[in-house]
Amino acid sequence: MARRIVGLLGASGETGSSILKGLTADANFDIVAFARPESLSKPANVALRDKGIQLRALDLEGPKAAMVMALKDIAILISAIGPRDQLAQLPLATAAKTAGVKRFIPCGYSTVMPVGVNQSRDQKEEVYNLVKRLHLPYTIIDVGLWYQISLPELPSGKIDYALGIPVRSIPGDGNTLTALTDLRDVGKYIAHVIKDERTLNQMVFVYNELWTVNQIYDLLEKVSGEKVPRKYSYAKDYEQQIVEADARLEQTPTDFVARAEKLGAQYSLSWGIRGENTPEFARYLGYLDGKKLYPDVDFTSYESYVQEVVSGKAQGVYDELKHLLKKATKGNS
Amino acid sequence: MARRIVGLLGASGETGSSILKGLTADANFDIVAFARPESLSKPANVALRDKGIQLRALDLEGPKAAMVMALKDIAILISAIGPRDQLAQLPLATAAKTAGVKRFIPCGYSTVMPVGVNQSRDQKEEVYNLVKRLHLPYTIIDVGLWYQISLPELPSGKIDYALGIPVRSIPGDGNTLTALTDLRDVGKYIAHVIKDERTLNQMVFVYNELWTVNQIYDLLEKVSGEKVPRKYSYAKDYEQQIVEADARLEQTPTDFVARAEKLGAQYSLSWGIRGENTPEFARYLGYLDGKKLYPDVDFTSYESYVQEVVSGKAQGVYDELKHLLKKATKGNS
Repeated sequence: MARRIVGLLGASGETGSSILKGLTADANFDIVAFARPESLSKPANVALRDKGIQLRALDLEGPKAAMVMALKDIAILISAIGPRDQLAQLPLATAAKTAGVKRFIPCGYSTVMPVGVNQSRDQKEEVYNLVKRLHLPYTIIDVGLWYQISLPELPSGKIDYALGIPVRSIPGDGNTLTALTDLRDVGKYIAHVIKDERTLNQMVFVYNELWTVNQIYDLLEKVSGEKVPRKYSYAKDYEQQIVEADARLEQTPTDFVARAEKLGAQYSLSWGIRGENTPEFARYLGYLDGKKLYPDVDFTSYESYVQEVVSGKAQGVYDELKHLLKKATKGNS
Repeated sequence: MARRIVGLLGASGETGSSILKGLTADANFDIVAFARPESLSKPANVALRDKGIQLRALDLEGPKAAMVMALKDIAILISAIGPRDQLAQLPLATAAKTAGVKRFIPCGYSTVMPVGVNQSRDQKEEVYNLVKRLHLPYTIIDVGLWYQISLPELPSGKIDYALGIPVRSIPGDGNTLTALTDLRDVGKYIAHVIKDERTLNQMVFVYNELWTVNQIYDLLEKVSGEKVPRKYSYAKDYEQQIVEADARLEQTPTDFVARAEKLGAQYSLSWGIRGENTPEFARYLGYLDGKKLYPDVDFTSYESYVQEVVSGKAQGVYDELKHLLKKATKGNS
């Protein structure tokens, strides 16, 4: 494949950092990281520039002509935009079409779900539908549940440092399989997907391993030597959480904690109760299976990740979110 | 394949009749035709029973338990429900899931389009999304533009008898390819699709031939020996028609003619201007290609269909619609 210019939005976010690492490890790509004009001098972006990454301003709320200019040499455009900015991809897709982008990767990178069960996924669907109305070449990539948000706390508190959003309870009977991926492997998969003609205009599901939550608890107990209390939540519990969160959002549409709790319950219902985050359900929805496309990709096993966490050497995620949630719920639980 | 019970809704409609014919010509299927309880004694349904088709009552507005009972021996459920009843398929899909239907064919049978450009397609999408939330096995089948609504009138008026909705003008420059299918071949394709494991949980696009509207006019002139006036309509014309129809629908939401005109403009924009009703765009949206799946299916060529029409031997479609539109627009054009 000829060397190609890949544009990346959100390079300093959790998924974006992994994607950036995957792209830089692959000699096929020249990388342009896009940032808001007012963010070019932020430490995270300065750090990118210090690493030799080309940084370019892109204002998603600015005039279309300026966006088209910024995108005009980009062959592959990857959006790893923040969870609250999904709809800002609408003008981005329109500009990408005009600029002649050869493949757009809209923000996906989540668990597998149908339309109508999760408000975050549904916003993404709005973007996917616009992409298709534009006839813009695309690939939609989902990556399953991150290792980094798959573990409960240990009684000793010794793995709290690594848990962005700790698992608070076991969905259903805990025996539903779900696909797990190390966030650090996400970028490697994406580097494979975007240079693969088989994935053009397709949905692709990449993942490392399949585990049940009971198996995860068993493994954590074995590796840590601690007993982890098991609390179970059922469909009606999650549905109740959604009803309560909706009531709070009705009062205060900007209630950050209520929104996070609603989304959390919607995710748990999907992957934990209905078992939608699996290769079988992904195939049912029309996804290509990453294991069949790339059987030889080297990835971190879940077992070695758990050992890393227990030995104190892992890296946490969502530090900012964790901090915000802790502040907002202080005294509530 | 073991003999299978196929349930069919709408067997007396335009598409349903073709499907029924395709199913009866195939020895693999036992057929159950479903009808509303109050319609069982209508002439069209009596005619079905006289042909030896098993007729069974199904009330889509009735209790779920009764629907489940009616569906409980059905392996493959095909919905060819009327254009104004699309959302009645929502309770049908839910009952089909409970009844253990092995494959549901929701109403499709249209031209290929993305989401958000056609109100009829968008209602179907609501049904498809529910099907996926139910994890109900499905196949979505689109069939392109019917031969039967692809021709303009001849100055002599001699083919008026065969034209359900005559083509009034040529979309764009008339050089956009569109996929055409003889309505009479639709059932044959569907009989192939529903017994094919490759099409389970997929979208499939079946069609006969690709033609441009200019080629169609040329052919009709050659076969008839008449000169057909060519009037062209452009994107802005169709958009204006939609704006005007919306204004009338705002006043009178039940305005039947306004709704038909809006839909007509939306269809023309899609297949005639943007060129969405093609194997290439279908592939882009994720459809399987019927020509690749069933290269040996015998079908009526477009040329022989046009000869049939000009020789006075063709069968019209949408007689009821034609009558209603004529009555409603009397004196308007």
